[in-house]
Amino acid sequence: MPDVKLLETFPTPRSSGPIVIEHIGEEFTSQCPKTGHPDFGTVTVRYEPAQAETPAGHSGCVELKSLKMYYQSFRNEGIFYEAVTGTIRDDLVRALSPVWLQVETNWRGRGGIRSIIRAAFGPVPVEYRAK
Amino acid sequence: MPDVKLLETFPTPRSSGPIVIEHIGEEFTSQCPKTGHPDFGTVTVRYEPAQAETPAGHSGCVELKSLKMYYQSFRNEGIFYEAVTGTIRDDLVRALSPVWLQVETNWRGRGGIRSIIRAAFGPVPVEYRAK
Amino acid sequence: MPDVKLLETFPTPRSSGPIVIEHIGEEFTSQCPKTGHPDFGTVTVRYEPAQAETPAGHSGCVELKSLKMYYQSFRNEGIFYEAVTGTIRDDLVRALSPVWLQVETNWRGRGGIRSIIRAAFGPVPVEYRAK
Amino acid sequence: MPDVKLLETFPTPRSSGPIVIEHIGEEFTSQCPKTGHPDFGTVTVRYEPAQAETPAGHSGCVELKSLKMYYQSFRNEGIFYEAVTGTIRDDLVRALSPVWLQVETNWRGRGGIRSIIRAAFGPVPVEYRAK
Amino acid sequence: MPDVKLLETFPTPRSSGPIVIEHIGEEFTSQCPKTGHPDFGTVTVRYEPAQAETPAGHSGCVELKSLKMYYQSFRNEGIFYEAVTGTIRDDLVRALSPVWLQVETNWRGRGGIRSIIRAAFGPVPVEYRAK
Amino acid sequence: MPDVKLLETFPTPRSSGPIVIEHIGEEFTSQCPKTGHPDFGTVTVRYEPAQAETPAGHSGCVELKSLKMYYQSFRNEGIFYEAVTGTIRDDLVRALSPVWLQVETNWRGRGGIRSIIRAAFGPVPVEYRAK
Amino acid sequence: MPDVKLLETFPTPRSSGPIVIEHIGEEFTSQCPKTGHPDFGTVTVRYEPAQAETPAGHSGCVELKSLKMYYQSFRNEGIFYEAVTGTIRDDLVRALSPVWLQVETNWRGRGGIRSIIRAAFGPVPVEYRAK
Amino acid sequence: MPDVKLLETFPTPRSSGPIVIEHIGEEFTSQCPKTGHPDFGTVTVRYEPAQAETPAGHSGCVELKSLKMYYQSFRNEGIFYEAVTGTIRDDLVRALSPVWLQVETNWRGRGGIRSIIRAAFGPVPVEYRAK
Amino acid sequence: MPDVKLLETFPTPRSSGPIVIEHIGEEFTSQCPKTGHPDFGTVTVRYEPAQAETPAGHSGCVELKSLKMYYQSFRNEGIFYEAVTGTIRDDLVRALSPVWLQVETNWRGRGGIRSIIRAAFGPVPVEYRAK
Amino acid sequence: MPDVKLLETFPTPRSSGPIVIEHIGEEFTSQCPKTGHPDFGTVTVRYEPAQAETPAGHSGCVELKSLKMYYQSFRNEGIFYEAVTGTIRDDLVRALSPVWLQVETNWRGRGGIRSIIRAAFGPVPVEYRAK
Repeated sequence: MPDVKLLETFPTPRSSGPIVIEHIGEEFTSQCPKTGHPDFGTVTVRYEPAQAETPAGHSGCVELKSLKMYYQSFRNEGIFYEAVTGTIRDDLVRALSPVWLQVETNWRGRGGIRSIIRAAFGPVPVEYRAK
Repeated sequence: MPDVKLLETFPTPRSSGPIVIEHIGEEFTSQCPKTGHPDFGTVTVRYEPAQAETPAGHSGCVELKSLKMYYQSFRNEGIFYEAVTGTIRDDLVRALSPVWLQVETNWRGRGGIRSIIRAAFGPVPVEYRAK
Repeated sequence: MPDVKLLETFPTPRSSGPIVIEHIGEEFTSQCPKTGHPDFGTVTVRYEPAQAETPAGHSGCVELKSLKMYYQSFRNEGIFYEAVTGTIRDDLVRALSPVWLQVETNWRGRGGIRSIIRAAFGPVPVEYRAK
Repeated sequence: MPDVKLLETFPTPRSSGPIVIEHIGEEFTSQCPKTGHPDFGTVTVRYEPAQAETPAGHSGCVELKSLKMYYQSFRNEGIFYEAVTGTIRDDLVRALSPVWLQVETNWRGRGGIRSIIRAAFGPVPVEYRAK
Repeated sequence: MPDVKLLETFPTPRSSGPIVIEHIGEEFTSQCPKTGHPDFGTVTVRYEPAQAETPAGHSGCVELKSLKMYYQSFRNEGIFYEAVTGTIRDDLVRALSPVWLQVETNWRGRGGIRSIIRAAFGPVPVEYRAK
Repeated sequence: MPDVKLLETFPTPRSSGPIVIEHIGEEFTSQCPKTGHPDFGTVTVRYEPAQAETPAGHSGCVELKSLKMYYQSFRNEGIFYEAVTGTIRDDLVRALSPVWLQVETNWRGRGGIRSIIRAAFGPVPVEYRAK
Repeated sequence: MPDVKLLETFPTPRSSGPIVIEHIGEEFTSQCPKTGHPDFGTVTVRYEPAQAETPAGHSGCVELKSLKMYYQSFRNEGIFYEAVTGTIRDDLVRALSPVWLQVETNWRGRGGIRSIIRAAFGPVPVEYRAK
Repeated sequence: MPDVKLLETFPTPRSSGPIVIEHIGEEFTSQCPKTGHPDFGTVTVRYEPAQAETPAGHSGCVELKSLKMYYQSFRNEGIFYEAVTGTIRDDLVRALSPVWLQVETNWRGRGGIRSIIRAAFGPVPVEYRAK
Repeated sequence: MPDVKLLETFPTPRSSGPIVIEHIGEEFTSQCPKTGHPDFGTVTVRYEPAQAETPAGHSGCVELKSLKMYYQSFRNEGIFYEAVTGTIRDDLVRALSPVWLQVETNWRGRGGIRSIIRAAFGPVPVEYRAK
Repeated sequence: MPDVKLLETFPTPRSSGPIVIEHIGEEFTSQCPKTGHPDFGTVTVRYEPAQAETPAGHSGCVELKSLKMYYQSFRNEGIFYEAVTGTIRDDLVRALSPVWLQVETNWRGRGGIRSIIRAAFGPVPVEYRAK
């Protein structure tokens, strides 16, 4: 079962300017709540972490191995695409208190239709728009 | 015959921020009204659904299997590219009452010319422009 | 010889919002006026057609087969890249009276240099910029 | 030796709207001034030519074959990436008096590092930004 | 050990307009400080160098071979993705005093998750946004 | 309904050596006999035609437009992948009396599994193996 | 738990020549027996089915939906790459009594090493070698 | 009109072992004899030239510029795919007396079907098979 | 230092037919013994393991994590491409006593030249040739 | 001027089985002897070196840096594609006395025709055919 408590954080490294982090998880699987068939997708998280001085535990950067364990907690969960996307956004926002965060789930599809769902929190940083 | 009544909806999931949904249907076929020859294309729908509290049936998200059946209703219909694109937009806008919706049809082409038709409803959400 | 009279039009379909049309012709050939050698390229036309209520013949959408015949009329014409691009734009603007139109010719090249020429008419529609 | 006098021009064709021209030369070679080893790269020039009524010789469009000969004049020249890029921009600006011009050199690299250098003259035309 | 003193610079070449430089290093390796396993990635640096008249040593362009040696100094360093990215930005900003600088590290990933980290200094130049 | 009588032939052109012909039809569609859902695929036919002197009508080469009409006759037919492949082989062998013929159908798939079916007639010509 | 009884078969269609069938399942997942972490891969099965006259149930072709359910039975199984590959081969050989069968599993990898495992039964048919 | 007399040859260079030559012409166009519409394709010629000591004019290697002019002589010719392929083979065999020669024409297609035609002369050299 | 003792093995799983295993390690690095500069490459190992009944420790399959540690032991070793390839072959042959084994190293290159080195042990199995 | 004396060799490393070496040089340039225009291409050399015990200088492996210098000696040489290919083969055979050697030159082309020339020495090793 998806569990926000699996997410561990570390304080944002102190540095001379903004930073944007992107994690692309290409091995995500959950289950369709209607048919029980497995769904496969890629989950991309992009965020600008909270300021360096924030105390860890309530904000900062997500630790990679804990993110992987968190994703694995969806493995046998019956849950729709939209809910996966919204849940990951809400859990990460709660864990990281980021300046900006975007979740994009890209699904292999069913019945000849592929789906991409995007959910966001906060204003897109100038940094990221520059690309 | 294309039939808007095939489209089923479900209420937009309640969540802490905007969401944009994209469905890419790579197995669309209709027929050229002039020659009767089949046309093949990809239909992409992108939209920001109406607010979560809207009563289902009049707005919300489109159910994937019903979208597939709706697409299949064009199979033996003689209809031009532009009309396919406009009809899908109009039917989805009527069924979903979305904040924003864009339909893009990408056709394999005839006589050495490929075509892409875009039709839209409402202002592009900031979210989507951020990509 | 390139002949604007080959271009046939049909009235823009009535619909609830803006539409942008793109035709990609990958089998264009003309001849270099200096050497007589053939040139090969792709001609892409993108436009927002005039309003639906405009009388056909003076504006609207270009009919695909007539566009193909129009392109074929360049086959044995000695004409520079820039002139091909400008001629197609001017002829289509005259035939369609579009809100916006862009012609992009992409040539296979000569002597190790490939060329892309763009010519435009009118302001880029918000719709198209959204991509 | 790079020689601006190799560049020939022709008057910009008269036409009903703006035009942007792009030439992609994939067979450029010069030499590293430090080691004498050859450098290989692609040189892309994009520009909006001066107005049609300007007298040729002082402005207009660059003739393709002369551009090729101009590039070949760098073949046995010891010159840095940045200087190649700046020299091509300066020579073309002098020869064409363009409204806007951009030179992008893309090098195959040395020691596991590839480089891309961009140099520009004038404001980016709205036309080009529309892509 | 990463060592800013490995970075050598040369004065920005004098020229008639802005210049943007991009170096793509596809052979970067460091080590995970937790597991000791090697990390592999691509490091891309993009910057607009300081004005031409600045005295070398304190600003200007980075010399390519010294950049390579600087990257190699991370080879046996235990250091996180975010710290690699921030360190390279800070060291290059100190060495070059650039108008704008962006560092993007793209990692092959661990445990099915690939990461991309971006760090920046200064406002994105109009030149670069034009692409 | 698939109809072998749609297939027209023309005598193999007389020539000084063997010939192998390949037709790749990327717009094939039929229907699943179990679910009624449409199937989409690519049908590739490769063959060495019968000798030039054979009287047309009983052997030779297949006429392209008639092949297209023949493929379209499967559009609303409920038929399995294996039967499509075997039927096309059998019908073409009957119509062409080829020296060698191979049919390969490549389907977009259902439920996350894509399928490729190959059926053949006669020994592979040395010519074709040479590739 | 992998279960050969999930595999359903149907009699090979009667036809005038050999047939080779290939099923590419891109959504396979099992678990590493050592770490419990999920493994993701593509499973490709290629086979020449037994003769048409064989009674169903003991030989013939594998039914696609049952193959999908069979693959899903590995989802929460702790099992090595080599054992997955050998088990699928052995189960399919038992269910289909094919003339020839090949299983190829292609895994996304762990720790920077991707793996491909091939297991076979019977002699490669001339048909398949011809490609 | 296709004209074998356009083909010029030069004596095969003397050398210590076999040589195989491949010319890939990506800008071929002729016309459909039925509809008059242009056909576009790629013509690939592979051959092992006759022995070095053969007198030029009757055998040897084909001169590249003359091959280009020969291809251009098909530009306004109404001719089927199979005849183009056979004619090029026959003309080149007559002009070059090669040990082995293969012509492959790859057409952009009409009505959703692409075609590849292969014609050959002589036994495939061991050299070429080795790839 | 490369150390064969890092390689661990496990007994080949018992099964009803031949098996071929391929491991693709895309994160290999060693050092040039002449210049000290790092080399980067991909190491692919393909082998048919010894019979199932062989006692482990002297033959069988290589354990993946130990293969990774073995590759890492080259990290700071000055060693030529050919020696890397031969050493890996010799060490794996000693550890596994395989029926067949092939090592292919594919290097990113130096000075504009990329290299691929292949070393083998034993006859290529029919299984593998079938692809 | 191409100069075989630039080629340096080192003794083939002693090892337990056959080895095949491939060097892909993507930065080759020479000049067309007719027009003086530069030609650009990729030169691939594949060979099985002579036995390990052969004294260096007369056989063995080619040293990479010397191969690069040898290629550079063609930079300002007017020489046909076929002669480049034959010369490299002959020079390498003289310098290395290999068991087998193949040279493949792949040219960017002139006038819309790309060329690939292959020259060989000795029988293709079983090793290499196994791929």
